[in-house]
Amino acid sequence: MIKITMAALAASLMLASCGNKGGEVSHATSSKDIAIENILNRKSVRNYLPDTAIAPEVMEGMLRCAMAAPTGMDKRPWRFVVVNNTAAFDTILDESDFNRKMYLSASAVVIFCADTTSTRQDSTGTTVVFPNPIWRDDMGACVENFLLAAEANGLGACWTACYPFAERMAPIKKVFGLPNNVQPYALVAIGYPAGMTQPKDKWKPENIHYDRW
Amino acid sequence: MIKITMAALAASLMLASCGNKGGEVSHATSSKDIAIENILNRKSVRNYLPDTAIAPEVMEGMLRCAMAAPTGMDKRPWRFVVVNNTAAFDTILDESDFNRKMYLSASAVVIFCADTTSTRQDSTGTTVVFPNPIWRDDMGACVENFLLAAEANGLGACWTACYPFAERMAPIKKVFGLPNNVQPYALVAIGYPAGMTQPKDKWKPENIHYDRW
Repeated sequence: MIKITMAALAASLMLASCGNKGGEVSHATSSKDIAIENILNRKSVRNYLPDTAIAPEVMEGMLRCAMAAPTGMDKRPWRFVVVNNTAAFDTILDESDFNRKMYLSASAVVIFCADTTSTRQDSTGTTVVFPNPIWRDDMGACVENFLLAAEANGLGACWTACYPFAERMAPIKKVFGLPNNVQPYALVAIGYPAGMTQPKDKWKPENIHYDRW
Repeated sequence: MIKITMAALAASLMLASCGNKGGEVSHATSSKDIAIENILNRKSVRNYLPDTAIAPEVMEGMLRCAMAAPTGMDKRPWRFVVVNNTAAFDTILDESDFNRKMYLSASAVVIFCADTTSTRQDSTGTTVVFPNPIWRDDMGACVENFLLAAEANGLGACWTACYPFAERMAPIKKVFGLPNNVQPYALVAIGYPAGMTQPKDKWKPENIHYDRW
């Protein structure tokens, strides 16, 4: 079983001493700057302190952020499977899987799922099921909110796509018992970072055009 | 031309007095809380103060956040057209378009675009172009980062999908001169909010499953 150990306590103390800044000195002077810096400091973290658990209220807080994402036509397609016993992934990971170590050492893996269908009432009052054409966009924003909340909590996380890769989706659906209308969209491994990872600087002004391409 | 007017100055003063909290009293006590509250406070804003402009450095700061999104295989598919003269949308909006008033009254509309192709070198050193299967997921996170940065700046914004709707994409491609390999993904109207909009509470614990669906 996963328990909070001395390593987790040490991690907490280390994180408490450097906030969510990855050890950098903070120049934030306002709420605006703090929120912006949290976005700019988010990075993919693939190495986690061993034998650490994420407190249930911390996980709930991050999922609350995930569910605060914008959603087209208010469809809210997101569903979540929080896997605290990450050994469950062992059965679906090939020995050669590059993420094997990451998943098995994470404190948790959250399976971001989506109900890709939607319903409406037709003119006779009958419920009609139809595909939601923009569920995937909601899910991207949903995962990003979760990752930013993880950063704010001093946690490290890494997003791996499941959808649209059938070879990833099928075993996850089976092992974790997803209903037919629910698809696994992404896996997010999460834990307390082992070591420091710097965010990438992806700023590229040439990507910006004004008024016309 | 759009100029900074007394209305914009009044808006700035009003926003300065209530931070990014939409007038609510802040209970934030830490950087973590501030970053989380910014996520929970984001909402779709469709009414903007007239005759206001967004300072170029504010727009750049928000686009810097957009480009800090996670990106599969480091492909960074995002491109942007910042439309400050929003009258340009008049030619492509039907009189009945529900977003007509929003686009024409916004301080700016950002067209979030994506290069949906990717390249790699094959074994002979030849550059091969192939479709990027996960560009859309990067774009969802990219838009969300921008919306959160807007919230942090006291701005109000609204995300409307373009992709995969051909009837929306075609006129935008034409009017704004997008290259063939670049698709319009979404429109984000943005301005200083006229009035207060409360974020929706979308928390639903039944969406969360533990260890298995």
